[in-house]
Amino acid sequence: MTDVEIHCNKERGQKFIKDVEQKRFHFSFVISYTETAEIPGITVAGADPNFIEYTPPADAEFIQHGFCKSIDIIPMTPDGKPTPALLTRASLQHADIPQVVINAGSKILPELPFFETGLPFGKNISKEPGLEKSSVMRAIDYGKKVGNVLALSTDCLVIGECIPGGTTTALSVMKGLGIDARVSSSMPNNPQSLKNQIVEKVLERSDSKEPYDVIANAGDPMIPFVAGMLSTASEITNVILAGGTQMAAVLALAKSVGYDKDRVAIGTTSYIIDDSSANFLEIIKQISDIPVLSINPRLEDSKFDGLHAYSKGFVKEGAGAGGSMIASVLKTGISSEKLLDLIDNEYSRVTTSQ
Amino acid sequence: MTDVEIHCNKERGQKFIKDVEQKRFHFSFVISYTETAEIPGITVAGADPNFIEYTPPADAEFIQHGFCKSIDIIPMTPDGKPTPALLTRASLQHADIPQVVINAGSKILPELPFFETGLPFGKNISKEPGLEKSSVMRAIDYGKKVGNVLALSTDCLVIGECIPGGTTTALSVMKGLGIDARVSSSMPNNPQSLKNQIVEKVLERSDSKEPYDVIANAGDPMIPFVAGMLSTASEITNVILAGGTQMAAVLALAKSVGYDKDRVAIGTTSYIIDDSSANFLEIIKQISDIPVLSINPRLEDSKFDGLHAYSKGFVKEGAGAGGSMIASVLKTGISSEKLLDLIDNEYSRVTTSQ
Repeated sequence: MTDVEIHCNKERGQKFIKDVEQKRFHFSFVISYTETAEIPGITVAGADPNFIEYTPPADAEFIQHGFCKSIDIIPMTPDGKPTPALLTRASLQHADIPQVVINAGSKILPELPFFETGLPFGKNISKEPGLEKSSVMRAIDYGKKVGNVLALSTDCLVIGECIPGGTTTALSVMKGLGIDARVSSSMPNNPQSLKNQIVEKVLERSDSKEPYDVIANAGDPMIPFVAGMLSTASEITNVILAGGTQMAAVLALAKSVGYDKDRVAIGTTSYIIDDSSANFLEIIKQISDIPVLSINPRLEDSKFDGLHAYSKGFVKEGAGAGGSMIASVLKTGISSEKLLDLIDNEYSRVTTSQ
Repeated sequence: MTDVEIHCNKERGQKFIKDVEQKRFHFSFVISYTETAEIPGITVAGADPNFIEYTPPADAEFIQHGFCKSIDIIPMTPDGKPTPALLTRASLQHADIPQVVINAGSKILPELPFFETGLPFGKNISKEPGLEKSSVMRAIDYGKKVGNVLALSTDCLVIGECIPGGTTTALSVMKGLGIDARVSSSMPNNPQSLKNQIVEKVLERSDSKEPYDVIANAGDPMIPFVAGMLSTASEITNVILAGGTQMAAVLALAKSVGYDKDRVAIGTTSYIIDDSSANFLEIIKQISDIPVLSINPRLEDSKFDGLHAYSKGFVKEGAGAGGSMIASVLKTGISSEKLLDLIDNEYSRVTTSQ
């Protein structure tokens, strides 16, 4: 028995866990960008508004190296709330899970080896469609190819993402597809009314319910790219969609692209499950009959205030943190208490070396 | 006019250069391993025999970071002859060419993001077949998939490799395929007789001329993997096979796998072209009508003895050095003199920071 909890389809969740326990995992990190993130008040990502576009490469660099190269600091709020990539790094390191980085529309390129897709970043959906329809199709096709290649040599492909402002595009996509969604935020006072205003504007622009139209109007490059990856990868191996709201939007699109439900689970933190301002499990049930796995990072027991903040509603999830913790637990059997020690060590290392 | 020289099919070479000048390049670095490298006296790669298996990940790490993570030192002989990855790094850095790393059978995993193929490392061909036939087919298939994905978003895919002992497997493969080949070495006194003894043993074991049989008996995982990459990538974009002898063996196999001759060039250093102990251009002409591009790194003009050694017959090529220099020149128009300054700076940085 591990500290991983199963929600929604419990039977499938148990089978999924059995299929991947102690097996080979590979973490793929999809970095992307939407100018929607530049709407004031929409995201806590990035220590400073000018740094928002550096957050995706900086997270990728931090996961790999424990420090960033694109910027001098690690993504952290001025009062010490660190990027969730810290949880991701501690988890992957412990379990020796290798990482691959894919640029699917990040404005800034990471300073480490990466796969380039050539996809453009997304536009600010409050002003104009997020993507051209041709980019949507290209992102799906490219995602299918990458998913196929990555799936061939692992027993479980974990897909994480970083796209600041991504909960807003995800919400717009889901509403556009007719899903009754309230989404989580990286801030404790979820800017619901701001998000809903944006969604309203987006949906006024187009009333097409055709999924690819909805993605073009309301989405970002990450959603179609990861939906493509999921589609082909799940035909070959097990896939953990590591994230909350954004992965729900991916799943909503994947219904149209196609995927194998028997080999997919969402992996996220308990903060997403427990967020009463959102309805995450209800959203997933509306979309698909797949299991949701969650783990409690127990950050309220951390030695550090910066990490306590997570349990008070900040950040909650991101950079594949929940899915990476779950992968680490399933591969090595580590308890969530022990994992917290490693996360604390990592936080201590980062804050004392600054 | 640049400092890139064209050999063999000059017309195709001119067209190739025209097609890629000032365009987008992506460098893919394939790391691999064959136990053939463990035959005493076969390779200079690695400062110490015990480090041979660390050379591929260390080169990948050095190209990306300018230092290694898998080992504390950079791959360099005790008297200061550095890995050719130093030339690769200086060239890619200057031209802002991103790198992707692919593990195709390295014994040691690199400490940076990479694509995993799950291919096994090669066996010592002086004792037993290098690969199982099923691994050959799997390597080609996987290479095809990776080549396809990588080719989609670049105007020129540069493929470099690191496999210690790789000139010996390459020689065996070419002889097995009936090509009249004498190959270069990373040492000034090319251990021809040792290599020829090995080749004799290998060819005694099997007289099949069927290309996939020859690769299985005499080859290593890099050759079929890169032949697969070349096959699909050349259908989509331009490809520089960055290397000497090993890339000749890749090309020899690619004749069977299939590829588009109009979009392929070999890119290498003038040390390979000028090596009178080998017959590189003759080998290529026997195999295919593609152009060979070369660049003179002018290391005899370097400020450092460790780099002079290259022009005295040591190292000569490796880690995609020649092809990366050519890519850097074709993308930015830099002269080989200026590139030498950057290489000298890099050598100085590395040797003073040790």
